[in-house]
Amino acid sequence: MAITLGDNRYGKAEVRLVRVVRDGPRHDLRDLTVSVALAGDLAAAHRGDNSGVLPTDTQKNTVYAFAKRYGVDEPEAFGLLLARHFVDTQPGIHWARVDLVEHPWSRLGPHSFSRDGGPTRQASVTVTGEASHVVSGLAGLVLLNTTDSEFHGYVRDGYTTLPETTDRVLATEVAARWRWASIGDGPPWGASFQGVRDALVAAFVDTYSYSLQQTLYAMGSRALEQREELAEIRLTLPNKHHFLVDLAPFGLGNDNEVYVATDRPYGLIEGTVSRDDAPPAPEAW
Amino acid sequence: MAITLGDNRYGKAEVRLVRVVRDGPRHDLRDLTVSVALAGDLAAAHRGDNSGVLPTDTQKNTVYAFAKRYGVDEPEAFGLLLARHFVDTQPGIHWARVDLVEHPWSRLGPHSFSRDGGPTRQASVTVTGEASHVVSGLAGLVLLNTTDSEFHGYVRDGYTTLPETTDRVLATEVAARWRWASIGDGPPWGASFQGVRDALVAAFVDTYSYSLQQTLYAMGSRALEQREELAEIRLTLPNKHHFLVDLAPFGLGNDNEVYVATDRPYGLIEGTVSRDDAPPAPEAW
Amino acid sequence: MAITLGDNRYGKAEVRLVRVVRDGPRHDLRDLTVSVALAGDLAAAHRGDNSGVLPTDTQKNTVYAFAKRYGVDEPEAFGLLLARHFVDTQPGIHWARVDLVEHPWSRLGPHSFSRDGGPTRQASVTVTGEASHVVSGLAGLVLLNTTDSEFHGYVRDGYTTLPETTDRVLATEVAARWRWASIGDGPPWGASFQGVRDALVAAFVDTYSYSLQQTLYAMGSRALEQREELAEIRLTLPNKHHFLVDLAPFGLGNDNEVYVATDRPYGLIEGTVSRDDAPPAPEAW
Amino acid sequence: MAITLGDNRYGKAEVRLVRVVRDGPRHDLRDLTVSVALAGDLAAAHRGDNSGVLPTDTQKNTVYAFAKRYGVDEPEAFGLLLARHFVDTQPGIHWARVDLVEHPWSRLGPHSFSRDGGPTRQASVTVTGEASHVVSGLAGLVLLNTTDSEFHGYVRDGYTTLPETTDRVLATEVAARWRWASIGDGPPWGASFQGVRDALVAAFVDTYSYSLQQTLYAMGSRALEQREELAEIRLTLPNKHHFLVDLAPFGLGNDNEVYVATDRPYGLIEGTVSRDDAPPAPEAW
Repeated sequence: MAITLGDNRYGKAEVRLVRVVRDGPRHDLRDLTVSVALAGDLAAAHRGDNSGVLPTDTQKNTVYAFAKRYGVDEPEAFGLLLARHFVDTQPGIHWARVDLVEHPWSRLGPHSFSRDGGPTRQASVTVTGEASHVVSGLAGLVLLNTTDSEFHGYVRDGYTTLPETTDRVLATEVAARWRWASIGDGPPWGASFQGVRDALVAAFVDTYSYSLQQTLYAMGSRALEQREELAEIRLTLPNKHHFLVDLAPFGLGNDNEVYVATDRPYGLIEGTVSRDDAPPAPEAW
Repeated sequence: MAITLGDNRYGKAEVRLVRVVRDGPRHDLRDLTVSVALAGDLAAAHRGDNSGVLPTDTQKNTVYAFAKRYGVDEPEAFGLLLARHFVDTQPGIHWARVDLVEHPWSRLGPHSFSRDGGPTRQASVTVTGEASHVVSGLAGLVLLNTTDSEFHGYVRDGYTTLPETTDRVLATEVAARWRWASIGDGPPWGASFQGVRDALVAAFVDTYSYSLQQTLYAMGSRALEQREELAEIRLTLPNKHHFLVDLAPFGLGNDNEVYVATDRPYGLIEGTVSRDDAPPAPEAW
Repeated sequence: MAITLGDNRYGKAEVRLVRVVRDGPRHDLRDLTVSVALAGDLAAAHRGDNSGVLPTDTQKNTVYAFAKRYGVDEPEAFGLLLARHFVDTQPGIHWARVDLVEHPWSRLGPHSFSRDGGPTRQASVTVTGEASHVVSGLAGLVLLNTTDSEFHGYVRDGYTTLPETTDRVLATEVAARWRWASIGDGPPWGASFQGVRDALVAAFVDTYSYSLQQTLYAMGSRALEQREELAEIRLTLPNKHHFLVDLAPFGLGNDNEVYVATDRPYGLIEGTVSRDDAPPAPEAW
Repeated sequence: MAITLGDNRYGKAEVRLVRVVRDGPRHDLRDLTVSVALAGDLAAAHRGDNSGVLPTDTQKNTVYAFAKRYGVDEPEAFGLLLARHFVDTQPGIHWARVDLVEHPWSRLGPHSFSRDGGPTRQASVTVTGEASHVVSGLAGLVLLNTTDSEFHGYVRDGYTTLPETTDRVLATEVAARWRWASIGDGPPWGASFQGVRDALVAAFVDTYSYSLQQTLYAMGSRALEQREELAEIRLTLPNKHHFLVDLAPFGLGNDNEVYVATDRPYGLIEGTVSRDDAPPAPEAW
């Protein structure tokens, strides 16, 4: 019997980067949180020999230097640049992942901005010696329908107390991540992001729902139908429960008007929708 | 020497209320977090005699029942209704405060909404037997100028290392609360809120700033100038520092292009701007 | 009608300071978050003239330099040192407040520590030209009794649904702040803190409770009785509701055995207990 | 080309359960957050047919009912009971995972407790028709050495600025999860947890460290050496950077005495240590 080192990785997490472009009186702004993780020939490092370790501090410096040298345009492109740099320049590094979260801002003036509190755009780039994978995504998109949602016909057992309903509020906070079928030489990352987001929102709005699972599938398949660049999409949909308040003790009805929004517990619905001609790539996630 | 009970209050905090109006196919939505606090003849309660205690559970029920009975329109109006109810109906309660936070949503369709992540609208209502006070406000409004901000000419002592600058990023997360000079019989709460918000944003955008204090005063005075319904405004402005990254070690310049956004520590600038003909009302806060 | 600047202050918030003492093989550690706020002749600063402004960056530097020069022993003493420095050395600064939060660690070995997750110790020091005030405190102390708590005999109105109970779980997260009657020349800050904490805990444990208000008063008066150095104590006690789960639908009883711990809404009980021969000092808070 | 449903699961997350045992005057307390996830024949559910769906509300009810019926002893045992119930009683459910987080409390008296703020104990149970897997763990264990940590000899490239050091603070917040080689019929879950925790802490304290990777391996291998019930352990160690403050501008030295504790970015070191005779079980995670 022996004890051995298994999978491992290391890197610098949550590097906060704000990049301003000041080519003229009208400035532009990109605001990212960047996390780098590297893996490779790191067994010696776990015995205290750092000769193959690129410090996480250097990884952080590289993020800032690249932001100056190459600019920061789309998160996916910036992530690919960084990930390839680490794999290409470090002989012992065979795998690099760069996760990027973009915090959106709205323009108020030529050099003035207000931060949007809404969903963040996300990208996760994985580069090995053989391949590059890109997963794009979004998080924090809160959607709610006040009607056109039913829930009934479910399994009943000795622990069932939930009443069936033909009209309820359906609300969720969408976290979605989608894998690119191929990244060619620089697809229109931003337009694709907007397209996927719009498809997800439209499917949520349009779907007359009998369960959040059904809505999930509708959202995922809509995205794949409309965006052929996607190989698969993974959705995480917490059911943000809105419960009807019982007002009968006060002599009042409640015809789907007054709800308590609860924090937890919450239903959590997760699923993948994929194109069946797209080869799987578990290493991309 | 004796030990005595001093100021005290109690209530139900963070009641989550979602009110849907379904008069036709087009629904409307209000999403509030409501906190109630009451004070009055409560000495006996602190000795274990509950005969003068309206339970916090009942306060919560009242919020929901009122939402049904009277609807929820502007947060200030709903807060006044609740606060007056408690003072008017409970002989031992002489002071009621209702704090409301409104979570904004955007319409996606007749019965579909997405939650805005941006600033929340706030209201704090105080009712006693003699008077009613309303403080409106907002929180979470993040603003940033990429230029037109300098900082120099400050005091230097033996602990000074900060370099002077004639061009920096200025960013803050505005929390503002303003007291109504008079509330008459139902002012246009919503229009006023929008007006104050617009004035604050415009002043931030317009001001060529030599300090965040100067910007604070510009914002506060602009709000008072443009909105005569305000007696005073209190602003809390954390300086969300964006520090230039030193890229010289990598042979790169950094002409105000690459910044690290830091979490803490942060400068914190707080101040009140008031109309000098408005009588003070510390009890409103 | 004119618009004027009212109360204002500025400073550096949340300076993270870890001070190690390495006099020998056995090291010691203090871990503080320090916030400084200053006020004085700052009207000009609000017009863009920084000649009276000690930058918040310098305030931060001072915290670190003082930690080296004078060491960091008790939070109260370190805060007094800092606050007096700012008032004494800056002609335009007439008021300084230093808030300190101490993060406790437990010793694991001569130079090894584990961070306690429990309550933090706090101090708030206010220094003006005339006086120095110290408020000590704690936050994050979560206490729970599984019995010896009743709640009944309260006011009933048309919105009452809460059932009376003669046996419930009572839980709260104590935030307490107490003002020193006099600070003389260096009282035993640490021993006092421990004594107040012990008194608060003992009173919570010992009190057969008919309401959280009663428990609050018992805690506050116990602290004052046992610690004569206290002039007053302010307690903020959220009622961390534990609701009995209704298991009857499953053919099960629930004799105060199975609870759901809820997040919000929560009751919030706040009160002051003071010594009636202690002159009030609202400026200390 | 067709679009298909891939991996999916659903369940109730973050069910807050407090279980009191009141067999006599001395009560006992268990405080858990329980999350259930189920998978199986759920394709129809994604088309709006709920006939195979056990509602998440029922899952929640089951947690509470089981807490009454069977009591709550060790988290692992309670999780196995729940997970097996769902797989055994629902024909369409072929996989169940129950994640449990235990919030520790300390006894203050026969029926009085204070909540420990320290690390939480965790368990993740996975049950299929064929097998049961248990992963135990802990999170939130913050450890710090003030010396016996060096970092040098690392790769240098054009983005390196980090100075080498032979004496630094090393601090981390341990998240560890370990897989049981076999669970037989009820191992001593609690004693094992304590043993693994002690081994991790002891290895952190004892190891003279040349990198956090080395410390990670020392911790993982120590746990495996001392606890033969473990097949593998996965460690996630953020490097909680403590940076020396430069006090030279103030004429002061800083011989590893004054540090700034930073929030982000942070190094993040992750690795698995396993017994090479233990068959892997990726499905357990």
